[in-house]
Amino acid sequence: MQDLQQQLGFILELDKLKAVYRQALVKCDNNRFENSAEHSWHIAMTAHTLKDYAQEPIDIGRVTLMLLLHDIVEIDAGDTFAFAEPHELDGQEDKELAAANRIFGLLPEAQFNSVKQTWQEFEAAQTPDARFAKAMDRILPLLQNMQNGGGSWARHNVKKSQVIRRNQYLEGLAPALWEYALEQIDIAVQKGWLRDA
Amino acid sequence: MQDLQQQLGFILELDKLKAVYRQALVKCDNNRFENSAEHSWHIAMTAHTLKDYAQEPIDIGRVTLMLLLHDIVEIDAGDTFAFAEPHELDGQEDKELAAANRIFGLLPEAQFNSVKQTWQEFEAAQTPDARFAKAMDRILPLLQNMQNGGGSWARHNVKKSQVIRRNQYLEGLAPALWEYALEQIDIAVQKGWLRDA
Repeated sequence: MQDLQQQLGFILELDKLKAVYRQALVKCDNNRFENSAEHSWHIAMTAHTLKDYAQEPIDIGRVTLMLLLHDIVEIDAGDTFAFAEPHELDGQEDKELAAANRIFGLLPEAQFNSVKQTWQEFEAAQTPDARFAKAMDRILPLLQNMQNGGGSWARHNVKKSQVIRRNQYLEGLAPALWEYALEQIDIAVQKGWLRDA
Repeated sequence: MQDLQQQLGFILELDKLKAVYRQALVKCDNNRFENSAEHSWHIAMTAHTLKDYAQEPIDIGRVTLMLLLHDIVEIDAGDTFAFAEPHELDGQEDKELAAANRIFGLLPEAQFNSVKQTWQEFEAAQTPDARFAKAMDRILPLLQNMQNGGGSWARHNVKKSQVIRRNQYLEGLAPALWEYALEQIDIAVQKGWLRDA
């Protein structure tokens, strides 16, 4: 029962991710800000939909779990804008690690270790599963911005080179998606949604 | 490229689930209504957290996919309240099937067949994976209502027997969770959040 109480405490704590808002807008809901919980759902579905583009073996179950977990630390550490200036990110890594320890630490110990390890694998972005998960987290905002007049790119004066760098996990891992992303980025520059720099 | 265009169309269509609102409230976000996208994320995380309580073998990857998929039909068919009167559900099954055909039908054919089958397996609730997924979809609102002064139960004058019936997938499949749910339901009756009937 001790374990169950801890697990239920963790599950209820997760509710708070629904109150963490991102820079992305939900076009079909009066352009309100998107929260990190619904975003996590959407990238998990994106990964399932695009999994066959991976050219290295991936375990879609693990990729999905990484995507469902990856933003939970924002409950304490807040969302950081994808194209924040480096000085705005000072101390962010430490804040996220402390958040992981507190929030995942609500779980029984064995589960805490496993969940934290999965989160750290995502953050390190070295394994094919983690790289594919990162790529999904990054291609979806690109698709959303292309549908929404440039979205957060246009509002924040983002550069083409920043978006290319951010989507680079696709290169090699999922060449067809990488090619598609580059084409879209060029279109965004032509439309004036991204700076040609 | 034809396949990719269809898949991206599906992914963008999913955005609309963020505009489908449920009866549940998000307590930590000024008690606004919860949408079905963030709810889907939350029950997928609930399943991961509670998976070891299943007494029959389950494939957590399949359970997760069912939970991520299960509400997508609401984009067209709308959310129905868990304790709606039978006449309020007239025609709902047909609407949901039409929604599945339209929305999953945005995908390339092989993927459409696989996704639709997974959704139908969830709906039929016969396999251990589907029963566990259903149980997760039902225990989370119970936990949320217990945290929130009875939540949607109290507002809609719900009966104890309705909540027991709704959570019955746990019986046999996850006895420890079933026992916990029954205890909580008794507490809810004592507090006047559920009618003792």
